[in-house]
Amino acid sequence: MTVDQEFSRLEDHRLAVGRGRFHESVRRADLAHLRVVRSAVAHGRLDGVDVAEAAAVPGVLGVFTAADLPDGPPIPARQPSPGIDFTPYLQPPLAREWVRHVGEPVAFVVAEDAYVAEDAARLVDVAISELPPVLDARRADGTTVESLAGVPARVGTIDTGYGDVAGAFDQAATVVELELDTGRHSAMPLENRGLTVGFDHDTERLVVWGAAKVPFWNRNVIARYLGVPDDRLHMRESDVGGSFGIRGELYAEDLLTVWAASRLRRTIRWVEDREEHLLAANHARQQHHRVRAAFTPEGRMTALDDEAWLDTGAYIRTHGAVVAALTAGMFAGPYRVPAFRSQVHLVVTNKMGVGTYRAPGRFQNNAAREHLMDLAASRLGLSPEEVRLRNLPTGEETPDARPMRIFGAPMLLDGGDHHGHVTKALATVGWDTWTARAGRARSEGRAVGVGMAAILEKAGLGHENAVVSVDTSGGVRVAVGSTSVGQGAETVLAIAAAEVLGVPPQAVRVVLSDTDTLHDGGGTFASRTTVVAGTAVHQAAEQVRDRAARTAARILQAEPEDVVVRDGFAASRHAPKRQLPLGALAQAAAAPGFLRPGEEPGLIARSTFSAPTMTYPPGVHFAEVEVDTDIGEVRVTRYAVTYEIGRTMHEGMARGQVTGGVAQGIGGALYEDLPYDADGVPLVRSQRDYRVPLARDLPDIEVHLFEDVPAPGNPLGVRGVGEAGIAGAGAAVMNAVRDALQLTAPLPRLPLTQATVLRAIRDRDAPAR
Amino acid sequence: MTVDQEFSRLEDHRLAVGRGRFHESVRRADLAHLRVVRSAVAHGRLDGVDVAEAAAVPGVLGVFTAADLPDGPPIPARQPSPGIDFTPYLQPPLAREWVRHVGEPVAFVVAEDAYVAEDAARLVDVAISELPPVLDARRADGTTVESLAGVPARVGTIDTGYGDVAGAFDQAATVVELELDTGRHSAMPLENRGLTVGFDHDTERLVVWGAAKVPFWNRNVIARYLGVPDDRLHMRESDVGGSFGIRGELYAEDLLTVWAASRLRRTIRWVEDREEHLLAANHARQQHHRVRAAFTPEGRMTALDDEAWLDTGAYIRTHGAVVAALTAGMFAGPYRVPAFRSQVHLVVTNKMGVGTYRAPGRFQNNAAREHLMDLAASRLGLSPEEVRLRNLPTGEETPDARPMRIFGAPMLLDGGDHHGHVTKALATVGWDTWTARAGRARSEGRAVGVGMAAILEKAGLGHENAVVSVDTSGGVRVAVGSTSVGQGAETVLAIAAAEVLGVPPQAVRVVLSDTDTLHDGGGTFASRTTVVAGTAVHQAAEQVRDRAARTAARILQAEPEDVVVRDGFAASRHAPKRQLPLGALAQAAAAPGFLRPGEEPGLIARSTFSAPTMTYPPGVHFAEVEVDTDIGEVRVTRYAVTYEIGRTMHEGMARGQVTGGVAQGIGGALYEDLPYDADGVPLVRSQRDYRVPLARDLPDIEVHLFEDVPAPGNPLGVRGVGEAGIAGAGAAVMNAVRDALQLTAPLPRLPLTQATVLRAIRDRDAPAR
Repeated sequence: MTVDQEFSRLEDHRLAVGRGRFHESVRRADLAHLRVVRSAVAHGRLDGVDVAEAAAVPGVLGVFTAADLPDGPPIPARQPSPGIDFTPYLQPPLAREWVRHVGEPVAFVVAEDAYVAEDAARLVDVAISELPPVLDARRADGTTVESLAGVPARVGTIDTGYGDVAGAFDQAATVVELELDTGRHSAMPLENRGLTVGFDHDTERLVVWGAAKVPFWNRNVIARYLGVPDDRLHMRESDVGGSFGIRGELYAEDLLTVWAASRLRRTIRWVEDREEHLLAANHARQQHHRVRAAFTPEGRMTALDDEAWLDTGAYIRTHGAVVAALTAGMFAGPYRVPAFRSQVHLVVTNKMGVGTYRAPGRFQNNAAREHLMDLAASRLGLSPEEVRLRNLPTGEETPDARPMRIFGAPMLLDGGDHHGHVTKALATVGWDTWTARAGRARSEGRAVGVGMAAILEKAGLGHENAVVSVDTSGGVRVAVGSTSVGQGAETVLAIAAAEVLGVPPQAVRVVLSDTDTLHDGGGTFASRTTVVAGTAVHQAAEQVRDRAARTAARILQAEPEDVVVRDGFAASRHAPKRQLPLGALAQAAAAPGFLRPGEEPGLIARSTFSAPTMTYPPGVHFAEVEVDTDIGEVRVTRYAVTYEIGRTMHEGMARGQVTGGVAQGIGGALYEDLPYDADGVPLVRSQRDYRVPLARDLPDIEVHLFEDVPAPGNPLGVRGVGEAGIAGAGAAVMNAVRDALQLTAPLPRLPLTQATVLRAIRDRDAPAR
Repeated sequence: MTVDQEFSRLEDHRLAVGRGRFHESVRRADLAHLRVVRSAVAHGRLDGVDVAEAAAVPGVLGVFTAADLPDGPPIPARQPSPGIDFTPYLQPPLAREWVRHVGEPVAFVVAEDAYVAEDAARLVDVAISELPPVLDARRADGTTVESLAGVPARVGTIDTGYGDVAGAFDQAATVVELELDTGRHSAMPLENRGLTVGFDHDTERLVVWGAAKVPFWNRNVIARYLGVPDDRLHMRESDVGGSFGIRGELYAEDLLTVWAASRLRRTIRWVEDREEHLLAANHARQQHHRVRAAFTPEGRMTALDDEAWLDTGAYIRTHGAVVAALTAGMFAGPYRVPAFRSQVHLVVTNKMGVGTYRAPGRFQNNAAREHLMDLAASRLGLSPEEVRLRNLPTGEETPDARPMRIFGAPMLLDGGDHHGHVTKALATVGWDTWTARAGRARSEGRAVGVGMAAILEKAGLGHENAVVSVDTSGGVRVAVGSTSVGQGAETVLAIAAAEVLGVPPQAVRVVLSDTDTLHDGGGTFASRTTVVAGTAVHQAAEQVRDRAARTAARILQAEPEDVVVRDGFAASRHAPKRQLPLGALAQAAAAPGFLRPGEEPGLIARSTFSAPTMTYPPGVHFAEVEVDTDIGEVRVTRYAVTYEIGRTMHEGMARGQVTGGVAQGIGGALYEDLPYDADGVPLVRSQRDYRVPLARDLPDIEVHLFEDVPAPGNPLGVRGVGEAGIAGAGAAVMNAVRDALQLTAPLPRLPLTQATVLRAIRDRDAPAR
């Protein structure tokens, strides 16, 4: 059964009427508030924390420092990276001996009232002997870090590739190279981070609202920190106002808030303010790339070689080296690259730690590589599209396993004919009209340009568990380890069950990320929910349907294969009038007479889907920009994305993902940045200073979803779509700006702030030395 | 691994320190209280309910009558009984047109304060046109009931048996007969019934604390009543202060309280007071038996024939005809009975409805049959033990399938050599010393007597589900559909997992009756928890252990069968020093590389155990009494029970079950009764008037648990022990009193109140007419 894809998202009604289940919606009579005291200094020795004055404030329930906390392990890395020992670089929940960035938690206050907590927090006296901050990863590389027990600033290197790179460069007809800096960004979700932790006096359990992304992993880490069994914690399903990778990783505040609830046996809420979000929620993206490519005279790439420095900030955060691995592993993008090497060095500094942010690594590596492709096109005298087409594998060359691994899994290009995708993309958007229009505009003296970026995306990783059940009322429930981060997971997973069980998606209740409902779960990241969780739901729903059919067949004295399950009923196709409601079948399926040995009573099935490799769909970004050359302001005037989605589960939501991604990507391409001053003090401390794109900054965004190549690795054929819109945005905008300004040199950094653009214009117009 | 059986119950610490999880322990800021307005009239037409005055009381949140409630179905029967349609006899949650017993709910008040609710409830004006009450089931049999739409007062008859009964009586050498009334009793748990229902504003779900016995079934019925999917309700694990069958069946108040929480979107608590408990919690046991048996000259029973009337009270309650089915089906007890018939007529009256009460049917049928055996002994000139031994099947005759079914299942006597059990019992207690001592006392003029009762018990019925898991900290969790009713389920189920996994029971967390943790569950009744749930846990734990061993084997590069799991570690028996903690294995077992297709990630296993038939263990009760013939007071001076338990899981708990059962049985044998006056008004309305046995009323109770015949139907070999102590108490005490008074006639009724005993003495001493 095909579900009508255009119904509203299941989440929307509750969100629209103000009944979202945010952690701040939780009302509790015993609610207290937590406020973190943070370092105002980037780097130094922590000489002492005096809490006496704060503790004396009426309404304060407690002021705690590292000395009060258990001697637990620091915040661990969730994903190990073979060959790199993160241990010395991990963050303690509260600073003990050293502070390593402005915003680092050094103490916290719990009070009856949030304002009292904030006021009291200001009275905590933190004594620090300052050290010079380290702010440049490339310069820090090679040094050691006193405040991390003298370990090297370089945490490690992700080094990947294959083939004879040096040989290829020796024999190259043309070598093109550039350096690119990508800025420090942050995802800036609408809802600040936070959590509410209830203490259940009945069971002595801790109930956590506001966990997102990887609740099972977080639960286990927190339990280890508290020294209790995992199930002493109950992570509850919550709505969140956006994640984009930043929310739901385990932060110091998660440990502190749960610990406080356990210690004080009360409900504790912590919500960061926007300044705290900017200071102490994961930053992202800051890298410096040195990339070069070798070409034959015909413009065929023979080698690609990148070396990059990733500024990890003060500590290695929970994602470990995931960003570096994706930066390096996917650096080649969709191209046929006979010899390839990419090295990413992770180097600690005295800034906020960095984490994953929607399309981690690809926003950066697409920018570096695709800008290089445009530069190569100029050098080779080819059009940007032509140099790309010459280097894209065709349908005959795919599926193709690159001789390398990502996250330990083989990298199998399963997205079909990349050459064909780009050809179709160019035709679909009418690329020649774009270039013609830009050319006309420039001939009129306007700085208009167009740029494209051919990208390789990826989706689906690891495993996810689903339980699908039908209750005795006929109600369908889906429980999955994935989380809702605003992306519509509820809707898409309801569809996955509904289309199998022949019920409307609205009849399906979806329980996400509730650690009491499932024994184990993955989470939501890496565009994996539809691919991995959707498949697990699909498989479990198929088992439930088959069980319903089998049960009905016994009652109807029919063959199971003759039983059709639809609209909440089962009937034999030979006697369609005798319809058995699913609820009655659920009841029958729990009766001993209907149970096979080992079978669970009722209409229930569990499934785990484990993606053996990721799926790698192609896409193309197209941007048109106009530059105000007087003030260096770039305006994106047209944008289009093509993307091989495999199969669309819900058209509106898929388009929304791409459109939102482009908007967010344009922010990173043009406006957003998190600079630090020479003392390591962040210059951006309020929303006003972090310029995210507004509606008026954005053109209409064309989205063309191709369903030409269903993903072979999952029965739904889906490929994920969460990161498609953002991954190529920096690249396409940068190429369009270079075109608009008719630069011969590459642009040096993202975002293309007015200052950067003005400098590029000045360099272009400067007399050659 | 054998677990030390003598540790304290896991429940005890929390109960001893006042941290029991009773529903009244639940604290909520939005708590409101519900009070039921009840009929003061036994039978009548409900003319009107005026709530205006009550609704105007400050602090009252609402006063509700049947008109406010959904047109939902009445309270259903949980167990159907083929051939009997209970529908016309079912109770609406609030009376609509008729009231049928004193205490029937007609309205309810919800108020901020429990006292305000109670005061306001008194202001509800209930207008009733009275009808004459029907108070005698035998006399009502054959009439119709106006207040139940004119249906017959006889709901139906359970009629069971086999063989040529009439022919056997025709040819009998001796026929013995008697009539026996058993009184109306109630289990009188320490904690009154009640529940607390929270409204979860985050999820719009209803959270129910205080559900016991059959939470899954109750959840589904309540959901149907509210018209919501099952999982809109979350039945939470709670401690309860005793059940004995009375608590946890679905009552009107359960529906009303949940409905009120849903309607008012608040936490609502309802707790009955003791008067309400006496008026409106299930009564039990009231039956009238006419029984006769045919004997050969050698004292061999050739036929047994019983006809009984069961006073169901005003409505058929949730257990349907379970008591009647057990009364009839198990009437023959352990004896070899060539021809057997037992009919139990269910007849409605205008008293409180009756339900199951610990050893339902057997307290009564053992009394009738065993008193008949003593009467037969007198007639046949045999000793009481001799007449029993002549009619008990030996080891050669068992296992024996009686040609009849109970609850649709064959009745297989699997308890071994009944003759042998009684022989061993007589020797173990030293029965000849009992009879000698009584004889000596009587020769000294004291009315001392001894009595025995050979019983057949049963345990284990239906199915139960268990989930056993090990978390990444190594913590073991067991989740089961059974409930804790104070019997130590937590401890015994922890043992069932612990002995398989080689951990101490204290390391196991047991989650009972939480409807969010399991998809489906049975419940706790019929001495089934150890047998059915214990087996499910045992099986699931075995799977977890095997999975742990398999996972460890891969890591250790050993054969799975060489891996030993003990003390929280797994190791190869060839290299015992390399120990892998269970927590680490739990983590490994969730890793995709370790998963087999279809396998759930982690160390987790689910098992359902479905008992194909019940297990039927033998037991013997022995009582010594002394009667104060001046005032008719009976004192039990010595008591012993032997019981074939199959296998003891926890010695102290098993003995406690038997001892407590005997105490409770002595209450029913001597003191407890719930009489009604001629208007159908209950005479017992406070604890003071319902004389339960006190410590000073009880002798030391000898308990002899035999482990001679492990139950063949389950891998633990257990037979259940919850009802063994009560089932034969009425019979043994009655026989002892008859012996003490040296009656030739049978005693006419239980309990043997002083009036009954005095009448028996008077009848004995009256000149024969």
